[in-house]
Amino acid sequence: MDSKLSILVALGLCFAILFDADSAAAQIYGGGSGSQTRQSRYRSPQCQLQRLQAIQPNRRIDAEGGFTEIWEQYNYDQLDCAGTSVSRTTIRSNGLYLPVYSNAARLTYVVEGECVQSEVIPGCPETYQAFQQPGQQYRGSAAGEQQQQGSRADEHQKVRRLKRGDIVATPPGFVQWFYNDGNTDVVLVTLLDTANSQNQLDNQDRGFFLAGNPQRAQEPREAEQKQGAEVNYNNIFSGFADEILQEVLGTSRETVERVKGRNDYRGHIILVRHGLEMIKPLRYQEEEQQRHQFTNGFEETICTARLRENMANPARADVYNPQAGYIRNVNRLNLPVLGYLYLSAERGVLYRNAIYAPHWNLYSHSIIYATGGSARVQIVGNQQRQSLFDGQLRQGQMIVVPQNFAVTAQAGSNGFEWISFKTGNNAISQSLAGKTSVLRGLPVDMLASMYQISRQEALKIKYNRGDELAIFPSRLSSSTCNDKKSKA
Amino acid sequence: MDSKLSILVALGLCFAILFDADSAAAQIYGGGSGSQTRQSRYRSPQCQLQRLQAIQPNRRIDAEGGFTEIWEQYNYDQLDCAGTSVSRTTIRSNGLYLPVYSNAARLTYVVEGECVQSEVIPGCPETYQAFQQPGQQYRGSAAGEQQQQGSRADEHQKVRRLKRGDIVATPPGFVQWFYNDGNTDVVLVTLLDTANSQNQLDNQDRGFFLAGNPQRAQEPREAEQKQGAEVNYNNIFSGFADEILQEVLGTSRETVERVKGRNDYRGHIILVRHGLEMIKPLRYQEEEQQRHQFTNGFEETICTARLRENMANPARADVYNPQAGYIRNVNRLNLPVLGYLYLSAERGVLYRNAIYAPHWNLYSHSIIYATGGSARVQIVGNQQRQSLFDGQLRQGQMIVVPQNFAVTAQAGSNGFEWISFKTGNNAISQSLAGKTSVLRGLPVDMLASMYQISRQEALKIKYNRGDELAIFPSRLSSSTCNDKKSKA
Amino acid sequence: MDSKLSILVALGLCFAILFDADSAAAQIYGGGSGSQTRQSRYRSPQCQLQRLQAIQPNRRIDAEGGFTEIWEQYNYDQLDCAGTSVSRTTIRSNGLYLPVYSNAARLTYVVEGECVQSEVIPGCPETYQAFQQPGQQYRGSAAGEQQQQGSRADEHQKVRRLKRGDIVATPPGFVQWFYNDGNTDVVLVTLLDTANSQNQLDNQDRGFFLAGNPQRAQEPREAEQKQGAEVNYNNIFSGFADEILQEVLGTSRETVERVKGRNDYRGHIILVRHGLEMIKPLRYQEEEQQRHQFTNGFEETICTARLRENMANPARADVYNPQAGYIRNVNRLNLPVLGYLYLSAERGVLYRNAIYAPHWNLYSHSIIYATGGSARVQIVGNQQRQSLFDGQLRQGQMIVVPQNFAVTAQAGSNGFEWISFKTGNNAISQSLAGKTSVLRGLPVDMLASMYQISRQEALKIKYNRGDELAIFPSRLSSSTCNDKKSKA
Repeated sequence: MDSKLSILVALGLCFAILFDADSAAAQIYGGGSGSQTRQSRYRSPQCQLQRLQAIQPNRRIDAEGGFTEIWEQYNYDQLDCAGTSVSRTTIRSNGLYLPVYSNAARLTYVVEGECVQSEVIPGCPETYQAFQQPGQQYRGSAAGEQQQQGSRADEHQKVRRLKRGDIVATPPGFVQWFYNDGNTDVVLVTLLDTANSQNQLDNQDRGFFLAGNPQRAQEPREAEQKQGAEVNYNNIFSGFADEILQEVLGTSRETVERVKGRNDYRGHIILVRHGLEMIKPLRYQEEEQQRHQFTNGFEETICTARLRENMANPARADVYNPQAGYIRNVNRLNLPVLGYLYLSAERGVLYRNAIYAPHWNLYSHSIIYATGGSARVQIVGNQQRQSLFDGQLRQGQMIVVPQNFAVTAQAGSNGFEWISFKTGNNAISQSLAGKTSVLRGLPVDMLASMYQISRQEALKIKYNRGDELAIFPSRLSSSTCNDKKSKA
Repeated sequence: MDSKLSILVALGLCFAILFDADSAAAQIYGGGSGSQTRQSRYRSPQCQLQRLQAIQPNRRIDAEGGFTEIWEQYNYDQLDCAGTSVSRTTIRSNGLYLPVYSNAARLTYVVEGECVQSEVIPGCPETYQAFQQPGQQYRGSAAGEQQQQGSRADEHQKVRRLKRGDIVATPPGFVQWFYNDGNTDVVLVTLLDTANSQNQLDNQDRGFFLAGNPQRAQEPREAEQKQGAEVNYNNIFSGFADEILQEVLGTSRETVERVKGRNDYRGHIILVRHGLEMIKPLRYQEEEQQRHQFTNGFEETICTARLRENMANPARADVYNPQAGYIRNVNRLNLPVLGYLYLSAERGVLYRNAIYAPHWNLYSHSIIYATGGSARVQIVGNQQRQSLFDGQLRQGQMIVVPQNFAVTAQAGSNGFEWISFKTGNNAISQSLAGKTSVLRGLPVDMLASMYQISRQEALKIKYNRGDELAIFPSRLSSSTCNDKKSKA
Repeated sequence: MDSKLSILVALGLCFAILFDADSAAAQIYGGGSGSQTRQSRYRSPQCQLQRLQAIQPNRRIDAEGGFTEIWEQYNYDQLDCAGTSVSRTTIRSNGLYLPVYSNAARLTYVVEGECVQSEVIPGCPETYQAFQQPGQQYRGSAAGEQQQQGSRADEHQKVRRLKRGDIVATPPGFVQWFYNDGNTDVVLVTLLDTANSQNQLDNQDRGFFLAGNPQRAQEPREAEQKQGAEVNYNNIFSGFADEILQEVLGTSRETVERVKGRNDYRGHIILVRHGLEMIKPLRYQEEEQQRHQFTNGFEETICTARLRENMANPARADVYNPQAGYIRNVNRLNLPVLGYLYLSAERGVLYRNAIYAPHWNLYSHSIIYATGGSARVQIVGNQQRQSLFDGQLRQGQMIVVPQNFAVTAQAGSNGFEWISFKTGNNAISQSLAGKTSVLRGLPVDMLASMYQISRQEALKIKYNRGDELAIFPSRLSSSTCNDKKSKA
């Protein structure tokens, strides 16, 4: 073996370890190393899974600049078992979702619209800086009259642009905000994972806004106030003494009053009257390109970790069948931060009448939200021969598929689109049919004995649809399917 | 330092890291890296450990080809605290334990007999292939008349031979089956660890068979139906709609009926009338040799990870005392998959009247099953000066030694053999006597003060049996011991 | 690139991985790798955090050589939520805290005095050896008359000297003892973390002494016997049969009686009449220097892992402000064993009227014990606009700041000193004011919109105290502060 080659090999191997962004990122996320995929979530002492339903949000919180609808885990057995809540937020044009953090790890999927978003990472520098060149006006400054005091060029932490199909990950305890600088509503669906192992409190989603008065603006949709229905978000400044805040912020008593938001009734999403000036990427494309241009393995440090990934592009699908649809996964391999949040996600599109083959998830629950169309979904549990759920999942509804439980879906006549949040970063699944079917791992004579069928029949179920992976076009006439569904 | 040498050293060191099977295997097991030995099990909110007993199975499930007896954790406080159940399965000649998976990590010890076994690993290829040479009949095909359709040579995932003293590890969610191709009964004892950190459901062992009708064949041994006594295993196909299964399996409605097992009353272990043809290793020895011949560090990938280890051979004992017996440990160092299951095991043999020195396990519970003979076992807890248990543990019985609790055992006149499942992959123990006694770590003057004895006496208890490790032959006459035991 | 250079680089990189003490140490601690900072503690199903109080110990256990006061987690909602108890132990001159282990990970801070301490690590050699040179008397031997039998030179595991400001870490299951060889009382404050992930039992602190009779000496301070108030420490030998102990210790029945401590009423801290001879470091300084002299990366093996760090020296402060005070952190980076215990600690000193800026801890609870002076502490929760706690924390009192909850403190006229135990090894905090304020990460226009203030005011709160980090001197007159406090 040539000595130079061996050096390169040695270096290469070592680099493979060292320039994995994991160790650096682990420092801040408090997560494990990249090869570490252990899930140690808080577990419900008893999962009530005798029946499942397609569910709607149980609560709505209105605000000046939009509203949030919540599926609360205290309200639904299936979410309680999974240890997660789900929320759907609509932000109107010029709406600012106030900066907030909580004990939940969050995965946010952009269902509609486009906005800017940021996460403030503790200890990281303000890297978005407005340089003022001589004779040039700082574009971040709103008006010329503030020039004497306000002439200091602004700087803040990274701001990213989000568009339809993006998913963004937020570690627990990180402050996050969204601002809709577009002309149409933004709709976000968020998994709120309080069972994450970073959370040392109980399973309540306990949150803190940096401004406003969430105690006032929130009101339950219906009269019934279940356990989780209390207001569990606060303005973090509200409880501190005025004189302390005045001192540590170096400001006046009047400003402290405003910071504490005592008389602020705008709610958790406010309207910014004349638009918000900040240093932000102009267009989505550019930011994306820039990232790819300069990739050298070094830039994935703690403070520049990538937290966003687009899932909408069929060209990047993991499973693609021109007759049936496509599936795209985001996990710790393509979005490393998910290695620390122990979460992943699946975006899927099924064409008219196509079938997602029956399968189970080995190391995660799957929280499915229908972003479009509808499907007949069947879920099989361990305690009864009938399915736990056999019905339609329609746009705007969600359902939980518990770990190890088997699930299949057949798209309706308008197709089916979904985002599925998974409570594990290595959400391996095992299919019951097709190319990667578990039946293919078994001897054909065993199948014959197990099912009391002929060897010929056993070969059929082992290989007949053996060239198709995960999603199949329907071979039956669509009328048959519709008949079945209308009976269900 | 010579440059070639340094290259080799550099390479060697890197190899030591990279070719450790851990990182690869971690991808599929969802476990931690090899050096990671953290246990984050589900913990019982309250351990009832005021009394311990040697226990028998509380439930028996009969089937055509054998039967399973279960110690259910819902039935025994000691198992509830440990978060595990234990089962003992007897498979008759030609019996096939149907393919099954559950949310429990499993360690199975072969008490009697010999069989073949397989685990279907998601995403792994079918590596056991029957090649058909020209003019040669495929030996896996049962009959000549199937030649036109059935002429396709079979292929399936790895099948391994198990014999007495083997232990086999099964990650949660992996499909597993056993087939007794011998002439005598096979007896398996299995730890069902639902407290494993991969399980995100509650502590119920929720299982899915790939065939049959477990809802019908199971019946509780006694009338009392405790919480865990419900049927919590299902045929995974049973709840799916016929037309979906027909489509995705590419088969007929009649076959789907058979797959769903509606009228199958054979139970979870079926009899294969004319024996089962498959591609399997002919003899145990050969497989073992083959593994050693080709070991080059590369073969321990995800799909070929070793899941079996033989514990019966005294020549590989970790502790060996010709007068007292021997102990053999299987842990993540000699069976790497245990690094991901966070489990380990100890096989022990004590000769007539020999003593297992008092000790405690720092990072695991120990679930002891007596495979032969009997012993007087004493267990000391933290709340009372008397022992929690002082009695006989006889062949076929089991008992839990909780973490940190002290235990000792003295074999009866026929000796004592056991398998001990440990709920940690680094099950360190600390002895109270002998070569590695904790007393040897303390200054002799401190022992004298602690126990209010002379320095001479302190030296005695520190060094008198200081050349013996873990297991000691009895120095007293056996009659004295028997007297004691008969009184107990 | 020069080949020699590349070799060095390759080696260097590999060394960086391999000679990190982590992998070796992980073997025994059962902890994760160094870069692994995941916390998977046992979590209280429901945290009662509507009110917080500065609390005193609820129980006192007296013994011959001192006494222990305990804040039991069963008695205080805030400790129950954190999964920890706290104890304060006073050891009199010549007092020996008997060797003991439990299922709690322990962090012990020396508030007063100086003593020797040791942890017996399973499987590690007795490295403190008394060599007897010809004609020289062994200094460890108490008297000449024992020379014939007692002439064997003693050896035992490492003993370390502790002084004021030291913190010492003890993994669960490790035997530990303290001996006060000085002339003044030693006062130790200990975090007892039963929520640590190594503990597989419930959250009770279940402990075992190697001697004595804790069942007799302990008596509750008050009549009320709450759940945790039972005696949950035992002499580990007490429950074993005499004849077994006689055999395995190779000693007489009389000595076994003494070992079992049946008639020992001295309690858990005994007085050693004529002092205790052992092989121990003579002076604190020397040990410290020795460690630094020989540091080459190799000495941090399993058996020689450093378990002690001094936190008292202002010269090593992490945050230092001559007008306000200083803060020193001990975590997995400067005391690697904390990487396995998933704990860390903060020692702080605030001068008269100085302020610890409002902040929250992202990945840990903070258990604050006041070692000196007093402070006005304010804690803000997520459910009400008022603070959960606004009052004095005085010397000898403690309080829990839950994860993510915001806290600030202003020292009283005599200053404030504290030790804060944190239930995470990467206890990142985020400040609401000063140099690392979260407000600096937000665009200035956003602050103006959020708080409905001018851009000028927004710049003020963003930058006005922007040169100060974490601790600020008060700019207001101290009289104002005192007024406020007297009203509180």
